[in-house]
Amino acid sequence: MQELEPDRIVRLEEAGPRVVLLDQRRLPDEEVDLVCTNVAEVAEAIRTLAVRGAPAIGIAAAYGLALAALRGDDLAEAERVLAASRPTAVNLFWALDQMRADPTSERARALHREEVDRCRRMSAHAAELFTPGTRALTHCNAGGLATGGYGSAVGALRAAFERGLLASVLVDETRPLLQGARLTAWELETVGIPHAVIADSAAASMMARGDVDLIVTGADRIAANGDTANKIGTYSLAVLAQHHGIPLYIVAPSSTVDLATATGADIPIEEREGAEISTRFAARNPAFDVTPAALIAAIVTEVGVHRPPYAESLAPARTFA
Amino acid sequence: MQELEPDRIVRLEEAGPRVVLLDQRRLPDEEVDLVCTNVAEVAEAIRTLAVRGAPAIGIAAAYGLALAALRGDDLAEAERVLAASRPTAVNLFWALDQMRADPTSERARALHREEVDRCRRMSAHAAELFTPGTRALTHCNAGGLATGGYGSAVGALRAAFERGLLASVLVDETRPLLQGARLTAWELETVGIPHAVIADSAAASMMARGDVDLIVTGADRIAANGDTANKIGTYSLAVLAQHHGIPLYIVAPSSTVDLATATGADIPIEEREGAEISTRFAARNPAFDVTPAALIAAIVTEVGVHRPPYAESLAPARTFA
Repeated sequence: MQELEPDRIVRLEEAGPRVVLLDQRRLPDEEVDLVCTNVAEVAEAIRTLAVRGAPAIGIAAAYGLALAALRGDDLAEAERVLAASRPTAVNLFWALDQMRADPTSERARALHREEVDRCRRMSAHAAELFTPGTRALTHCNAGGLATGGYGSAVGALRAAFERGLLASVLVDETRPLLQGARLTAWELETVGIPHAVIADSAAASMMARGDVDLIVTGADRIAANGDTANKIGTYSLAVLAQHHGIPLYIVAPSSTVDLATATGADIPIEEREGAEISTRFAARNPAFDVTPAALIAAIVTEVGVHRPPYAESLAPARTFA
Repeated sequence: MQELEPDRIVRLEEAGPRVVLLDQRRLPDEEVDLVCTNVAEVAEAIRTLAVRGAPAIGIAAAYGLALAALRGDDLAEAERVLAASRPTAVNLFWALDQMRADPTSERARALHREEVDRCRRMSAHAAELFTPGTRALTHCNAGGLATGGYGSAVGALRAAFERGLLASVLVDETRPLLQGARLTAWELETVGIPHAVIADSAAASMMARGDVDLIVTGADRIAANGDTANKIGTYSLAVLAQHHGIPLYIVAPSSTVDLATATGADIPIEEREGAEISTRFAARNPAFDVTPAALIAAIVTEVGVHRPPYAESLAPARTFA
């Protein structure tokens, strides 16, 4: 298998014009492109998780706005449609903000390149948190698919593995949509990192057995005080990690840090359709949860390793406030 | 839908002779009987989870031994085959022990009746732990399907609901085999108890929101000191419950109490095939975990509500030692 190139994950083609996405809903069984010829289709791709992961959502939205500009569409309306696609990841709003003054394909591509470059830098910082033989656990997919290339939490695992510091990874399957079992396992296989998928509910048991040295995840929004919204189940891991004396690290680009949001209580949490959980019985399906800063050992961005108190240490990562 | 009668869940028919099981793997989509005409087929039904739940496994094994006796098979060999089907639930070994001196269909039916009767008594005791408006959370299926009728943890929910003490139930879907989403939701629908299925990893978030007043589960084996083996994920819930100040109650018949096993460290934990988690990537699949007694607010058997220290309070529930 080949390493995923950033423009394989999402790209803009002026001829068309169109935004082309690797459809993440069909991975790992099929590698199929989804072609979006207008902003409504890009927003639908975001809403239905053909493209997902906070940074990748931002990148797709940037390309979406550039697509609207190429088509001569109303840009304010295009921005409104894209902003309404998903509520939790701040990168979406950050990217639209970045594009407003210069909604060109060049600007969108630069934003994409910068985001992948941030991943490589934050991953190098995060690798410093690993020691030889580290057995890590991760949740959901904070890989190249989620960030437009290289990955944040998966990037940290890659950087640690390249330095000989990572022994193996336990991958939470991440219900209901199995981003861990489908996407993270696929990415780890690609780069040759030993891994095993587990049921989300088995993580506590693995910690109690002494099989987990650290936990690393991405983020969808980090509030000014360090409270972090991420895939449902991250908060569960954080509480379990504290109980077992295991550090939980968040790895995310500064585009995920939202200093305009004071605390996690101010982060809107997307409730998705119950049918993702059960098509037969009533269900509740919050897509994200909020992990209090007190349960996070460190937050890593491209700026460096931020330690508590986050109200002070995150200030240099300010990108959207 | 009709309340499940005990002989619909598992029964012995002398004409044949055969053991007939409601195939729990196909619920709730289809209600299909699985017919076993020899002990190997009964053991296979237990191994492949056509019948599951610690007390129901014991009952099926008892019928299996009676089937062997009716057929004139070697009973020592029949017992060996049944005992090798699954390792964690002590009820299996307890039931074989109970049947050894009198391997008749009458004895097996009496054992089945007694187990359902225990469920009704423990459920009445457990209902005392509920207060008006209680919102409960449960994991896996400790319902009539798991006990041969009425249920243990689900029995407690039923008894509390009948007394006007239960408002609603959050049902962990219970990966990988979805016993909660398939079986518990189905049973709660049958008896009209309001419920919603959640991803296992969402339980912590529901606790943090204040939406869970207590947690109630069954058990597969309870050691003399109160350490309890149950479906993978129960230990996770127990740690999360402690963090949020929510009581976790275990409801199980005395046939699940194993005073010959000193602590949870001595309980064999079944590792099932990774393919239940992922058919594409490597996986680890422990089917059970052990919750330390210190995280359990009370254990309820047909004898009553047992409080810590369990080494003393469980002694009257001695049935297999």
